[in-house]
Amino acid sequence: MKHNFGAGPCILPQDVFKEAAEAVLDFNGLSILEVSHRHKDFVAVMDEAIDLVKKVLQVPAGYSVAFLQGGATLGFSVAALNMQRQTKRAGYINTGTWASGAIKEAKKVGVDVDIFASSEDRNFCYIPKDFQIPTAVDYIHFTSNNTIYGTQFKDFPKTDLPLVCDMSSDIFSRTINVADFDLIYAGAQKNLGPAGATLYIVKDDALGKSTSPFMPTYLDLKQQIDKESMLNTPPVFSVYVSMLNLRNLLANGGVDAQQQKNEEKASLIYQEIDNNPSFRGAVDQADRSNMNVTFLLTDESRSGEFDSMWKDAGIVGLPGHRSVGGYRASMYNALPLESVRVLVDVMKEFNRKG
Amino acid sequence: MKHNFGAGPCILPQDVFKEAAEAVLDFNGLSILEVSHRHKDFVAVMDEAIDLVKKVLQVPAGYSVAFLQGGATLGFSVAALNMQRQTKRAGYINTGTWASGAIKEAKKVGVDVDIFASSEDRNFCYIPKDFQIPTAVDYIHFTSNNTIYGTQFKDFPKTDLPLVCDMSSDIFSRTINVADFDLIYAGAQKNLGPAGATLYIVKDDALGKSTSPFMPTYLDLKQQIDKESMLNTPPVFSVYVSMLNLRNLLANGGVDAQQQKNEEKASLIYQEIDNNPSFRGAVDQADRSNMNVTFLLTDESRSGEFDSMWKDAGIVGLPGHRSVGGYRASMYNALPLESVRVLVDVMKEFNRKG
Repeated sequence: MKHNFGAGPCILPQDVFKEAAEAVLDFNGLSILEVSHRHKDFVAVMDEAIDLVKKVLQVPAGYSVAFLQGGATLGFSVAALNMQRQTKRAGYINTGTWASGAIKEAKKVGVDVDIFASSEDRNFCYIPKDFQIPTAVDYIHFTSNNTIYGTQFKDFPKTDLPLVCDMSSDIFSRTINVADFDLIYAGAQKNLGPAGATLYIVKDDALGKSTSPFMPTYLDLKQQIDKESMLNTPPVFSVYVSMLNLRNLLANGGVDAQQQKNEEKASLIYQEIDNNPSFRGAVDQADRSNMNVTFLLTDESRSGEFDSMWKDAGIVGLPGHRSVGGYRASMYNALPLESVRVLVDVMKEFNRKG
Repeated sequence: MKHNFGAGPCILPQDVFKEAAEAVLDFNGLSILEVSHRHKDFVAVMDEAIDLVKKVLQVPAGYSVAFLQGGATLGFSVAALNMQRQTKRAGYINTGTWASGAIKEAKKVGVDVDIFASSEDRNFCYIPKDFQIPTAVDYIHFTSNNTIYGTQFKDFPKTDLPLVCDMSSDIFSRTINVADFDLIYAGAQKNLGPAGATLYIVKDDALGKSTSPFMPTYLDLKQQIDKESMLNTPPVFSVYVSMLNLRNLLANGGVDAQQQKNEEKASLIYQEIDNNPSFRGAVDQADRSNMNVTFLLTDESRSGEFDSMWKDAGIVGLPGHRSVGGYRASMYNALPLESVRVLVDVMKEFNRKG
């Protein structure tokens, strides 16, 4: 039994893996990999996946859901292309790597970016607060959770401007109010499904209003939604497994119940980090992510010893990103509480031996 | 046992389905769906997939291979963005639907398109010949095989200009001379792997020379290749299954042997179409595709009878595209000769009963 604390692509429920493997061998008499995306059996899968997203996140009327490809990196461009209006200016909050990528791609498609809040001054170890949201811009963009630094917005920015969010690494981990947003996008490979699908939730009112002179059809959310995510061949298997995973989430109490589990896991490990003198957290307490827990050894010279111990316990994916160092315990929806207990026990034992 | 004549996503070797299903359950102790793309085990998969493409197609030195997402539809834009140079003009051959899509997307990213050859006058039922290739353009673009109409280039256009080809539906089905091209692109979901990956083979010399003022990083082939297809999270499972399928192709004699099998299958069914008075081919004989065989009933009033017969024989995916009507037998690499025999037997039996 391995405990997969990897940052993504990441663990999904074991039942989902089983059902996915079965469908590779037999999905109504064919492999799911050889089924036409136009066949009614797959159209039903796509419809159910979209319906489940709406149900699980309580997406209100007036919003549409689409599955594209290209990950959040292409999403950075899609967001800036589709949301640019008359001013061609947008306000971005920079919380590191992914937010920085979104800023870079917005500029590349003609958006003048106002970075009105940033945590770059302390290597992105906190979430900016007390910022002044600009007014004369087309939209506001932020990244709800930073997988690398391990920070997470607990409260979202409040604004009457169109709000755009890259939720790749914490969507489906907690309740959100979709009505606060004009556009949410997310790579599937954390809490939704395998790599290869990218989710978009967009206010219908925001569609078809881009002022960009460049708009490849694939990147035009209006056309993607008009074609019900079938503008061209969708990533059939990734959508199928996402659908299975959303079914599983709903059957287990939905996002409310999942949020409780995630808080329990986070509380367990953060308490250990705070109480165990061999460790310290990498980011400000108030902004700690429930998805990606970053921490450091107080005595770096003991890293070899700690590494052996967690590896012996069956833990994988724990090394921190090179930008932060130390360790990162990613605890996505499907990671069981039991895996966190195993890690916490290793941390306790490591401290006793110190 | 079903005989899958679907136009794509399509049949792959049964052994590949088995190995893929196993990896969903266990790939070095984890599911392939939860493995980080940065883990050495997946980096090895990506490297092997790229190496296999090079080996199978005898890609010469000075060319690079990348796996992206978005299908050929996004490829239309990628091609036009990356290949535009000083003139911002390009010559396109219009053989229907996919070629038309490529033309539309090129225009959307600032390319002035010269459609110097087209078969639109006869509803795309042939491949244009005896055309004059323009000279004052940045590149020439064509689509090697049209899945909808069932036409295929037997000889490729000859030019000293950079040649660009969408080979989505016949790559790996026959030998090609990669050195003739500056850029080849192909959605995976025919002869390569499951939907969700898109293959690019590009001359290194063509990289980084775009004159487009608009270039999202994801669509920039130079940056994708510099990052070895890991600019962001790749479509892990689609690349993995593509790798398995290429291993299988190589172990079974490679493209040379596959081409022979494909010609045998095509010969069998086209002979039947030509000799069986109940059927007629939908396109000009010289331009018939070995991948997608389009044909019609001579007496349309008997379609219900024919449909019952092939369905009873376990055949799926035979109805023609709405643009052509009639029937389309897609015979990608993994479709066994035996399946074609079953279809031909049904056609003979149908004629006897007529």
